[in-house]
Amino acid sequence: MFFASDNSGPVHPKVMDRVIAANSGHQMAYGNDDLMDEVRAGIRRVFEAPDAAVYLVATGTAANVLALACYTQPWQTIYCSKIAHIQVDECNAPVFYTGGAQLKLIDTGDKITPEGLEAAIAETPQGDVHSAQRGPVSVTSVTERGTVYALDELKALSAVAKRYDLPVHLDGARFANAMVSLGCTAAEMTWKAGVDVVSFGGTKNGCMGVEAVVFFDPSKAWEFELRRKRAGHLFSKHRYLSAQMAGYLEHDAFKDIAQQANENAGYLIEGLRAKGVQFLHEPQANMLYVNFPRRIHRTLAEAGSRYARHGGLEGPEEEMISCRLVCDWSIGRDQIDAFLGHF
Amino acid sequence: MFFASDNSGPVHPKVMDRVIAANSGHQMAYGNDDLMDEVRAGIRRVFEAPDAAVYLVATGTAANVLALACYTQPWQTIYCSKIAHIQVDECNAPVFYTGGAQLKLIDTGDKITPEGLEAAIAETPQGDVHSAQRGPVSVTSVTERGTVYALDELKALSAVAKRYDLPVHLDGARFANAMVSLGCTAAEMTWKAGVDVVSFGGTKNGCMGVEAVVFFDPSKAWEFELRRKRAGHLFSKHRYLSAQMAGYLEHDAFKDIAQQANENAGYLIEGLRAKGVQFLHEPQANMLYVNFPRRIHRTLAEAGSRYARHGGLEGPEEEMISCRLVCDWSIGRDQIDAFLGHF
Amino acid sequence: MFFASDNSGPVHPKVMDRVIAANSGHQMAYGNDDLMDEVRAGIRRVFEAPDAAVYLVATGTAANVLALACYTQPWQTIYCSKIAHIQVDECNAPVFYTGGAQLKLIDTGDKITPEGLEAAIAETPQGDVHSAQRGPVSVTSVTERGTVYALDELKALSAVAKRYDLPVHLDGARFANAMVSLGCTAAEMTWKAGVDVVSFGGTKNGCMGVEAVVFFDPSKAWEFELRRKRAGHLFSKHRYLSAQMAGYLEHDAFKDIAQQANENAGYLIEGLRAKGVQFLHEPQANMLYVNFPRRIHRTLAEAGSRYARHGGLEGPEEEMISCRLVCDWSIGRDQIDAFLGHF
Amino acid sequence: MFFASDNSGPVHPKVMDRVIAANSGHQMAYGNDDLMDEVRAGIRRVFEAPDAAVYLVATGTAANVLALACYTQPWQTIYCSKIAHIQVDECNAPVFYTGGAQLKLIDTGDKITPEGLEAAIAETPQGDVHSAQRGPVSVTSVTERGTVYALDELKALSAVAKRYDLPVHLDGARFANAMVSLGCTAAEMTWKAGVDVVSFGGTKNGCMGVEAVVFFDPSKAWEFELRRKRAGHLFSKHRYLSAQMAGYLEHDAFKDIAQQANENAGYLIEGLRAKGVQFLHEPQANMLYVNFPRRIHRTLAEAGSRYARHGGLEGPEEEMISCRLVCDWSIGRDQIDAFLGHF
Repeated sequence: MFFASDNSGPVHPKVMDRVIAANSGHQMAYGNDDLMDEVRAGIRRVFEAPDAAVYLVATGTAANVLALACYTQPWQTIYCSKIAHIQVDECNAPVFYTGGAQLKLIDTGDKITPEGLEAAIAETPQGDVHSAQRGPVSVTSVTERGTVYALDELKALSAVAKRYDLPVHLDGARFANAMVSLGCTAAEMTWKAGVDVVSFGGTKNGCMGVEAVVFFDPSKAWEFELRRKRAGHLFSKHRYLSAQMAGYLEHDAFKDIAQQANENAGYLIEGLRAKGVQFLHEPQANMLYVNFPRRIHRTLAEAGSRYARHGGLEGPEEEMISCRLVCDWSIGRDQIDAFLGHF
Repeated sequence: MFFASDNSGPVHPKVMDRVIAANSGHQMAYGNDDLMDEVRAGIRRVFEAPDAAVYLVATGTAANVLALACYTQPWQTIYCSKIAHIQVDECNAPVFYTGGAQLKLIDTGDKITPEGLEAAIAETPQGDVHSAQRGPVSVTSVTERGTVYALDELKALSAVAKRYDLPVHLDGARFANAMVSLGCTAAEMTWKAGVDVVSFGGTKNGCMGVEAVVFFDPSKAWEFELRRKRAGHLFSKHRYLSAQMAGYLEHDAFKDIAQQANENAGYLIEGLRAKGVQFLHEPQANMLYVNFPRRIHRTLAEAGSRYARHGGLEGPEEEMISCRLVCDWSIGRDQIDAFLGHF
Repeated sequence: MFFASDNSGPVHPKVMDRVIAANSGHQMAYGNDDLMDEVRAGIRRVFEAPDAAVYLVATGTAANVLALACYTQPWQTIYCSKIAHIQVDECNAPVFYTGGAQLKLIDTGDKITPEGLEAAIAETPQGDVHSAQRGPVSVTSVTERGTVYALDELKALSAVAKRYDLPVHLDGARFANAMVSLGCTAAEMTWKAGVDVVSFGGTKNGCMGVEAVVFFDPSKAWEFELRRKRAGHLFSKHRYLSAQMAGYLEHDAFKDIAQQANENAGYLIEGLRAKGVQFLHEPQANMLYVNFPRRIHRTLAEAGSRYARHGGLEGPEEEMISCRLVCDWSIGRDQIDAFLGHF
Repeated sequence: MFFASDNSGPVHPKVMDRVIAANSGHQMAYGNDDLMDEVRAGIRRVFEAPDAAVYLVATGTAANVLALACYTQPWQTIYCSKIAHIQVDECNAPVFYTGGAQLKLIDTGDKITPEGLEAAIAETPQGDVHSAQRGPVSVTSVTERGTVYALDELKALSAVAKRYDLPVHLDGARFANAMVSLGCTAAEMTWKAGVDVVSFGGTKNGCMGVEAVVFFDPSKAWEFELRRKRAGHLFSKHRYLSAQMAGYLEHDAFKDIAQQANENAGYLIEGLRAKGVQFLHEPQANMLYVNFPRRIHRTLAEAGSRYARHGGLEGPEEEMISCRLVCDWSIGRDQIDAFLGHF
């Protein structure tokens, strides 16, 4: 009954098998391995972007902040949601990597609204040396509350950004889960919707630790390479990053794995709805924010279930305590059933 | 005939098996996995340091610069060799991670001499606000030229550092190769010789991508954790770092792997000596700097051999061209024989 | 009719005379001038703080961000008002100087309330490596809206900060105006109210360009000196900073100058009230935020009056447009009368 | 007998008079003062550069590092002399301002030679992600040893830089002294010799604290403005910087003041030569490096003379101790005679 995160599960066999297969003979280091050619071609195919610059790093933090740093001057502002992962969960990493930029927080719920974005941009005085200057817009989908931006919502945000000539970054730590949920293509969710650079997440979706950073404008390529190296994120035995991503891309495995995770979540959602549990946000992928009485949290805790609970176990039995539940591809129906059995 | 680097070979089965074994079920993320307990205990045992703070990162760059950053103020100077990896091969990473420190380069050959260190420290005015201030001493062993500091040499450097109350960092990207070469213990090569923090390398010695940072003074622990997170070097699926290091430590596998690499190098050295090849430095571990005529480089290149050559293939046949040859554990005697066959 | 800012007026004779007097003979550079001894003693006397560490810089930005940097780690959060000068008007300077800290904005009007501060601190998870960590509290008085924290209000904020073991910084760009308004001592407004470090502003109050940074805990002294030098804010011909501050402190000239500015503002306030002008904040020092019809802004603009107007001259005549009016010591009653004549 | 530095003397009347004259009425802040127009025109006239972007800061450190930062990426290398002021005397300021660049030190004596520069550039691998990348060349004239680059020497350095497409920065803390020494124009010493940006020093040559940064390529203008503000080096009461520079430029006062300083030094040089004193470098402007017995240093110290002595007063009487002697415009012949009287 492990719903703590989609980063707590094992590596999917389709990914692991390629890692094991890669483990023989010698390969050039630092991204010059043969497998990286396969990865580059695979990403360009999936994103229908034959000129895209493609790089691998091992953590989502690195992917996001290295990508953003290529589009942000130290005296600029990054526009993001008040609950954006880069704001809440990265110990100031974006500030470190950009050399001093600030984040401007947009407080419009689980998603940034075009009006909220426009207001935030307008609040940044233009051409006034005293103020931080306008910089990139960073959007997360699947959002940090388990919802997914519709393509029209993404396009509306990009339209605002473009009106002010600002680049758009997509934090796609759960890119595949969002894409499967929307039933769209990777291109539709990115450059066709105005996204300039995307972190295409693998780690949370069945990989060991790999994220692709995809620049649709390859002019940032060399700067990214220097920034990645300078930050210690260029792997010498890079083939093991390539192998993961190769497996992830082969026959679009990333979609199947995400489909499985989303379906697991769907099964859990259905079960919880049947129990009358309250949803704080309408779940659209593999992450749920729900509310139920402390009493049930207690029995779940006793039974060894793990998830992020936003309140302690001490207190009135019937008080509602919210929590986050995340399903990865590997969580079994039996575990979900066991979990539901406590309601 | 792949002598390009010890980071171009495959992962050793003792390490890979643990990675594969770790791939089932759910585990807490971000270093809270069960395997990390085994790793922590293993490192403390190997280093005879029951209070050491132990952390894992995936690259040697990260290990070195995060460790150094915990001991360096932005207005200080890091003392290191003119050929130190942190100076030559890290695209300014130490400057980035320390927030602005400079490196003071000591030009005394493959090793820093105590006199050279003392002179460099003395050259930094003490208590003068105009000058960068004195900071940590960083030593690499195996050195960047394939030699190994004798324990007395290490102690002599630490003695100088301690006289000025400066901390000592050991870049141990090839720690095990040095240790096996010296026939000493890990403790003798570190805290017993005055080292405050060590990067205990795994990647170059048969791992996939893992380095342990070991602080003998655990008071730096929390700062390191924050710096690692802020830099994007905290892995969510941390168990796969732990698993590598667990396999590396189990029954002191790191020693066996290093022994194998050093012996491979020994076989190559013997063969080259028999051919009358000139050694630029006396090789003491698994890395050789040698000199031979362009003519032989040409035949080796044609035969597909890979290594770092410090000169082009065009030019007089008999001109001497130097090169670096590195042996990992996996390089076969047949390959070495084939290589030698071209002399 | 110049109400644009208190940094647009001339230097007060009491300050200028000392600058002129200082201009003869040779003096040691970089803060080792004889006048600095007088300044140090003067600040310690005024603040009743015999152990205070005292430094001069030439701009308010430098004073604030250098002081804050001594109390902030790069992975921490600075708590300040949403309208704090360090947030709104410094082009990310605090982020630059702290090496990467973020500002957490408290949105409780012109002043930070203790409840607002407590909520902001509580929102920062403690001991969670993913989140930015808690850092210093920065308070501005005179506030950016022309109001002044009562001593009890300041103490209440410090009490919250101390409960969480966080340091308190006071941005005193208009320190003297606030002090005169409160009728209190410099000690009461600082260390007696829990302030750890203060930027004691001179520039806006009749100096040419000088601010004292006063640390009540002198343990930060050497770090400040290094940070000041590294930032290019240590003056070689420091005597001209010392001379300004010496004149500013002599016979408590800073109080007289601030008194004059506040009285000028009082005269303007009275006149505007008599005209029925609406005040957005209750002015307590030398800065007013008021609202009046565009029609009057137009006639003032035609007559050459200068001030910060928060709206354009084009539009309906009777629409209310807000503005900021600041009085320095030098603004004459005749100018104020002329200004009022347009209402 | 004050030869410690040209920053220890008083402000020249031609400069001071303009400061005093500027002290009436109100002026727009932050560089929008009327006097700045005069300054901008004056600099463009003096440098024969009608499109130059011109900015004022108060310290030489700020001028140099802000100028360099506009031409340096954090992963690049600044080429400068091993004795460059930016290396030796700025407490890592260039590293701080560039966000992480390193300095590559050229050890060819008081001046960088074209061969030394070329070798240093060539030593930086091109297009190798592991190495710091090539960046700007920074030259100081008057050099840190009192010599002056001939125009041909400057051009030869620029030619090397241009061949590698690298920008050239001139640290002109003693620009006027060098120019007067060469008998050339400001244009000849800068853009006509391939210099892209110059710090045109005022402070050491009779000003209170002002340096002009002159960009011959105005495309860097806005970035400089943002960097200056973000660093706290934009003055609110900017008119007092403008006034100094206006006086400094009027009727080319900067030349007369430098002429006076150089002549004072010439008189001292002649006197010392007559006494048989040994010169470590051939003095070409207003700064001397000389060698004489400890015995004379002692009598000078007893007589209250101030200068930088590179050795203590304790030791053998006849041991040679070197020192630096600097003459500003204000040092009187009587003082020089008194000084010489001790030999």
